[in-house]
Formats: sequence, structure tokens, C-alpha cells
Amino acid sequence: MRAELERIVGSEGVLPGDTAPYLEDATSTLGLRGHADAIVLPRTPEEAAGVVAWCYERGVPIVPRGGGTGFAGGAVPVAGGVVVALERLARVRAFDPLAWRMHAEAGVRTAEVRRLARESGLHFPPDPGAAEQSQIGGNVATNAGGPHAFKYGVTGRWVTGLEAVVAPGELVTVGGPIRKDQSGYDLRGLLVGSEGTLGIVTAVWLRLAPAPEAALPVVSFFDGTDTGCEAIERVLGSGLVPATLEYLDGATLAIAAPAFPGCVPRAAGFMLLTEADGTREEAARLRADLVDVLGETALAVRAPESAAEAGELWRWREGIAFAATSKWGSKLGEDITVPVDRLAEAIGAVPAIGARHGLEAISFGHAGDGNLHANFLFDPKAPGAVERARTAAEDVAALGVSLGGSVSGEHGLGWLKRGQLARQWSPRALELHAAVKQAFDPKGLFNPGKKT
Amino acid sequence: MRAELERIVGSEGVLPGDTAPYLEDATSTLGLRGHADAIVLPRTPEEAAGVVAWCYERGVPIVPRGGGTGFAGGAVPVAGGVVVALERLARVRAFDPLAWRMHAEAGVRTAEVRRLARESGLHFPPDPGAAEQSQIGGNVATNAGGPHAFKYGVTGRWVTGLEAVVAPGELVTVGGPIRKDQSGYDLRGLLVGSEGTLGIVTAVWLRLAPAPEAALPVVSFFDGTDTGCEAIERVLGSGLVPATLEYLDGATLAIAAPAFPGCVPRAAGFMLLTEADGTREEAARLRADLVDVLGETALAVRAPESAAEAGELWRWREGIAFAATSKWGSKLGEDITVPVDRLAEAIGAVPAIGARHGLEAISFGHAGDGNLHANFLFDPKAPGAVERARTAAEDVAALGVSLGGSVSGEHGLGWLKRGQLARQWSPRALELHAAVKQAFDPKGLFNPGKKT
Repeated sequence: MRAELERIVGSEGVLPGDTAPYLEDATSTLGLRGHADAIVLPRTPEEAAGVVAWCYERGVPIVPRGGGTGFAGGAVPVAGGVVVALERLARVRAFDPLAWRMHAEAGVRTAEVRRLARESGLHFPPDPGAAEQSQIGGNVATNAGGPHAFKYGVTGRWVTGLEAVVAPGELVTVGGPIRKDQSGYDLRGLLVGSEGTLGIVTAVWLRLAPAPEAALPVVSFFDGTDTGCEAIERVLGSGLVPATLEYLDGATLAIAAPAFPGCVPRAAGFMLLTEADGTREEAARLRADLVDVLGETALAVRAPESAAEAGELWRWREGIAFAATSKWGSKLGEDITVPVDRLAEAIGAVPAIGARHGLEAISFGHAGDGNLHANFLFDPKAPGAVERARTAAEDVAALGVSLGGSVSGEHGLGWLKRGQLARQWSPRALELHAAVKQAFDPKGLFNPGKKT
Repeated sequence: MRAELERIVGSEGVLPGDTAPYLEDATSTLGLRGHADAIVLPRTPEEAAGVVAWCYERGVPIVPRGGGTGFAGGAVPVAGGVVVALERLARVRAFDPLAWRMHAEAGVRTAEVRRLARESGLHFPPDPGAAEQSQIGGNVATNAGGPHAFKYGVTGRWVTGLEAVVAPGELVTVGGPIRKDQSGYDLRGLLVGSEGTLGIVTAVWLRLAPAPEAALPVVSFFDGTDTGCEAIERVLGSGLVPATLEYLDGATLAIAAPAFPGCVPRAAGFMLLTEADGTREEAARLRADLVDVLGETALAVRAPESAAEAGELWRWREGIAFAATSKWGSKLGEDITVPVDRLAEAIGAVPAIGARHGLEAISFGHAGDGNLHANFLFDPKAPGAVERARTAAEDVAALGVSLGGSVSGEHGLGWLKRGQLARQWSPRALELHAAVKQAFDPKGLFNPGKKT
């Protein structure tokens, strides 16, 4: 097998199937780890197509892999086969700042896309976190979100075209460096977020936008979830459009407060982190409006002035998941979405679910999008803890659906949430889901077991 | 047949199959007219599902119909069967202005959606034209665009969920009143723009946004296409984001100038119509920037001050297609997209294509999106004129693809552009397109002959 694959991608392009870093993703703290027959690292889309053709003919599972930063086990090779890692397919094929466009191969790191854009006065708004590790192909394949999705939408909104290897090992291109396309069915949109189960994204055309001149954070603290969620509705009802509208519940705040760059009021049981962006004047004006509207019921509102303070704040925000993991050694994070007017109910229900399963439960996330990261914290050595966390996570999925929402707003189904879609979709919709999979992958070899 | 259908939708819900207005759309001036066995007007999604079930069991074609304002013949029943007109399924099920959301049935007129939003300080940005006739379900089924798509995107970007009748006659719901959903494959996105060939959209959940405080037009005239397109690139390169970036070529301007609310410079051979929106200050500042950047090479720049003048300007813009039709009695309008840096080439090639086929050719459209409406004007009584126009239109489709673009940026394939997708997509991509159709509609009864 190895010799045959080496003939396609060269000898340095094939690693032994037990090369550890390629067998897990961010779910490794839950003990999730796969096994593979080989790890293959194509350098060109043609090599990727060759590998897929080889596998497809022989009935060998194909597991595409980006930066391996996913939270749903999507990149874990649970059924063996060949891991196709895109890290060497990492060329920026074209960058046209004057036309607000980039054409990048799947393995280009997200941070690199953002950096290139920024250096030309543009921005690529999706910010799912772990930007230095994650790759743009993986972001597209999982339709990654992040705090700025509130104003700017998720990754898919910024993808105008893609090149992908589909069964039985052929390159196809849909869309391109164009901003509108109403010709064929939206296969672009279908491949976006398909988690490697319909094909392998090898390159993408990205739409960029002029960077806002200023981005000014506003932090506000409330006595609890109800007051905090009322403040969110007040922001929306006032017609203000911050770039982010993030929340931390009281339990998250307790964990993250020690590292907070500033002072947290003692009575705080809920926090919002919003950002006003735009031209300097516009951002300043929106910041003032946010301070007003949030201030009506907040315990305290802080609007740091300097870019350095803002940077510190966002680094702190990105560290929350890590701080939560550190407390007991492991955590399981959910990502349901609910209608924004059901947010308080959803946040309020999380601690009770944790209590039911004997786990500390916290939540934080993208309040404006009704997107909760409910997290269950546990000591991975405690007997049955992982299992209890997974059962608790299922309760959260059920909660999301019962409130009219989705079992996943960001992470996707991957392996961890297999079976959960049935809570949300009718049997006929699930049949269509399976029929689409069958249409693209009749042998069921692309990332088997995922996205079901 | 009629009696059986009346049992499902009531006697006033079935019209004779030869009821003329239901057999054509905006392509009627090209002589396109279909034939049907019955026209059915369901009042509820369940009735719509019942009609589809009845048809699907008997192998009867199902042709969904919205406002009938399409330019591609998508709503024309070319293969007989039952026209399912959604006009009585026209309830706004929920409108939550504080959460920026609306849940509307397919038959709600687009103008009504926009009006309701506006009355609550919100806006629904897509503006494909003919808003008083067109229905939101049809807009979603064709993923309609319009001038404001440059800043705000096409209809699909504003759809967070939909309810649809799919084969063999069942209602499914994907998405809902939530702003993010990364659970199943994007069946929502697949149904959006599927032109009634995968199912019938019966209701949609729409995302709305706070309305901009001000929207200030800036009109600029240039000596020709090259100078005009350079100005477009200068706007983009300056990082300005107008809400619209519309153009008229010289020939369009000649036709539309007499009705222009203001003065057109004699030497003008190209016109741009941009709009600066946002808060009052922001819009004023952007308007000033646009005036500066466009003014560098423009023959004249005008920035009307009053809302009345702005309204007049946009009414004039919406009348261009009608003015063009009026000149010779008929026209055939194309809607290719090209990368924005190939726009000048595309615009420049249109008159030559017209000349080759002995037709007057003009173009105008959504310059910022690289979206051209190339139009061929003709006297419908002139022998062979329609055929020549259709051949010319095929040349335009080929032009779009040769420049790296799409055969359709707005109208869809419908019936008029059947076969054109093969210019743009590889054989394998076309197979996947057909496989998706097969997955949703194994009997091929939903809007047969369209979107191929």
C-alpha cells in the first residue's frame, strides 16, 4: 500500500498509519483517537485526486485533514483507511487586493489568509479561533464561525468558489473569482460544511472586504443571566449592529475572571463582550451607543481606549476554553444555537443539566447568534466522567431542538454528534441528507461515520 | 383530474389549465408560453403537499409559480402538468422586529416583506425589481439579486430556514429562526435557487437588519467603458463600500437618458450609479469619498440631496429594462457574471456580438458584482429575430465563461438557458448536478426541463 501511494505523492509524502498527531483532533482530551493505514500528504490537487482514485477503486476510507483543531472529531480516522492531510497543499495561488479576492489552497493557515488580507487593508472576517493551527480548507469544510460571525457571517459567506476532489477521484470546480453565480445547484454551498464527507476541498476562492478602520470593544457586567439577556435584546431592539455580541455566564466568568485584563465587579454573574467597528467616527459613535444601552442595567461598563487593551481582551477571550479545560483537566464543549429570544432559557438550563450528571457546567459563546458553548468540565481520570459528559451533551442537543434551534451552530456533527441530527430533522429530511451523501459518495468512503 | 384536485384545495382553488396569466412569465415577449392541465392554488402548506402527492403518484409534472416575474422562463409549464401557484399561501406567520426576523409564506409579495420591515426600522435588502409582483417564495427559489446585492448579498444570504414540499409529497423544514446551523448538509442552500426543480418552497424564515439611517446616491458620467471601469476599480481599490455600484453602457444611456431626472453630459458614454448608506454622518462621508474618487476622471458627478430626488433616480433605474424593451418591442436579457477586473472586456464585447447577429445590443447592471445585463433589442415581428437574439445570448454565455465567470448571476437557468451550464461545469460536476436532482426528485416531475 505504502509503495503504491508513494508512487502518487512521492516517498516523503507518505507517513506510517500510526503517526500519532494525525489520528486525533481537539477531542483528544475525551480519549478520542483513530487509526489509519497510511497518512498521505499531497502537494498538488492532482496528487490529491490520484490518492482518492487509488482509495476509491480499492474501497479504502478517505479521511481529509486540515489543522486538526475541530471539536467534533471530524478529522479523526475512526474507520481506518488513508488520512489525506492538506498541509503541503498550501500555496496562495492568487491574491488580488484591488478586487478584494484571494485564491488559496486548502492547506494555507487561516492566520496567513487574515495576515495577507490585513497587510493590504482588507480583512477576512471569520475568526473561529486557533487561527495559527487551523487551515482554510478545514474552515471551509466545517463552515467555521466565531465571534465576528454576528456581523460578518460564517466562513461559507466568504467563499465564492472551490476546487474539490470528488468520487471516484476527480477534480471539480464550482464558482470562482466571481461574486454571484445562479447557474447550477449550489454545490459550492453543499461542499462548504460537509465535513469531508462529500469530497476533499483542495482550494478556495475567498471574497475579502475592506478592513474597518477601528474596532473598539465594550465590556459590560450584569448581575445574572436574565439581566444580561435582556441587555442583548435591548441592543438588538435599538438597531445597533456590533461586530460581536459575546457572553460569559456566571460560572464561566468565575473561571476566567482571574486572568481578565481589568477589574470584574464582585456581584457580576454575566458578562457581555461587544465590539464596535467601522470608520473611526462610526466605531466611536457605536461604542458610545453600546455603552448607553448596556449601561441602563449593567453593574459596570468598560470601553478600553487603546488597541493594546483591545488585543489583550480578545486574547483573554480566546483563552477561555483553555482555562475551562484546565480546571479539571478536560471538558466537552457543545455548540447549539437557539432563537436569540430563547437564549436566557437555554443558558439557564445548562447548569441543571450538568448537575443531573454530576458535572460542573458552564456556558459562553456568541450571544447575538444565539450560539451557546455549553461546556461540561471533568477530570478525565474520574470513572465514567467522559460518558456522563457525553450524555449531558446529548441533553444539551435536545434542549437546543426543544427551543427551536440546532444541535450544532459551529462544530458540525463530526463523530461526536453522530445521530443528533435526527432530533432536529424529520425522517424525510434525513432521507434527503442520506440521498445527497449517496449522490456524491456511492461507496461511502469519504470520512465514513461522520456527519450522520 | 379537476374534481380530484378540488377535493384537495377546494373548488375555488383550481383553475382551468388554459388560464393564460399562469402560462407565461417575463419571457412572454419572446413568445414563450406553456400549457397546463390545471392551475392549483393551495391555501396551506398541507394543501400544497397534498397536490404534490397527488401529482407524484400519477406522474404528473409539477410547476411551482410565484409572481411570474422571472426572465428565464422558469415558471413556464413547458411540459404540461399542474401549475402550483403560491399566491394564496401568503400569510406572514411571525414578525419579530426586536429579533430582526420574519417568518413568511411563499406567496407574500416581496414589497410587503420590505414594507413591514421598513415600518419597524429594519430592512430586507434584496431588491430584484418588480417587488410589487414578485413573491418571496419565488425570490428564494431563484436566489434573486438586485443592485443592493453588492453590499448586502443575494436573497439566499437572508434566508435562515425554509419549509418546502418535496417528493413524494411531504413537508420538510430545514433551518428556522436561528442565525447559524452547522448540523446537516446545507439543504436550505440547495433549495434556495433550485428554481422549483427540487421541491416547492412554501415558507421562509428571513433574517432582517436595522435599516440604514440614510442612503445617498452618487451618479457619475464617463466618456466611455474603459474610463468607467477604471473608476469602478478605483472605488474598490480605495476600500470604499457603496451599497450599490451600478453601470449603464453608452447604448443603454442613450435609450434611458431622455427620462433621466437631471442632465446627462453630451459626451457621456458610460454611467455609474452608486449609493452611500449608513448613519447620516457615515453616508455623507462615504458620499463625499465617492464623489472624490469618481470625480478624478468623470465628466460629471451628481449627488442629489433630497430623498425625493433619490427616489426618482431609483425609479428611473428600475425603468431601464422597460425603456429598452419599448424601443423595438422586445428584448432578450442576459445576466452573466465575470470577475470584476474583466468587466470592461465583457461590456466591450457585447455590441460586437449584437452586430454579428444584426441586433442592437446594450448592457447595464451590477458592476460591483461583475454582473452584466447584456440585452438584445428587436422587433418581435421581424423574421428570425427571436432566434437571432437567442443565438446572441448563447454567445454572451460563452463570453462569460471564457472570462472566468458564470452563465447566470441572477436569472437562473430556467428554460431559456437550458444546456448552458455545460459551458461552465466539467462533465463530473454536471453528473453531480444530475445526481442531486435524482436524489430529490427521482421521477423528474418537479419543473421538468428547467435548471439543466
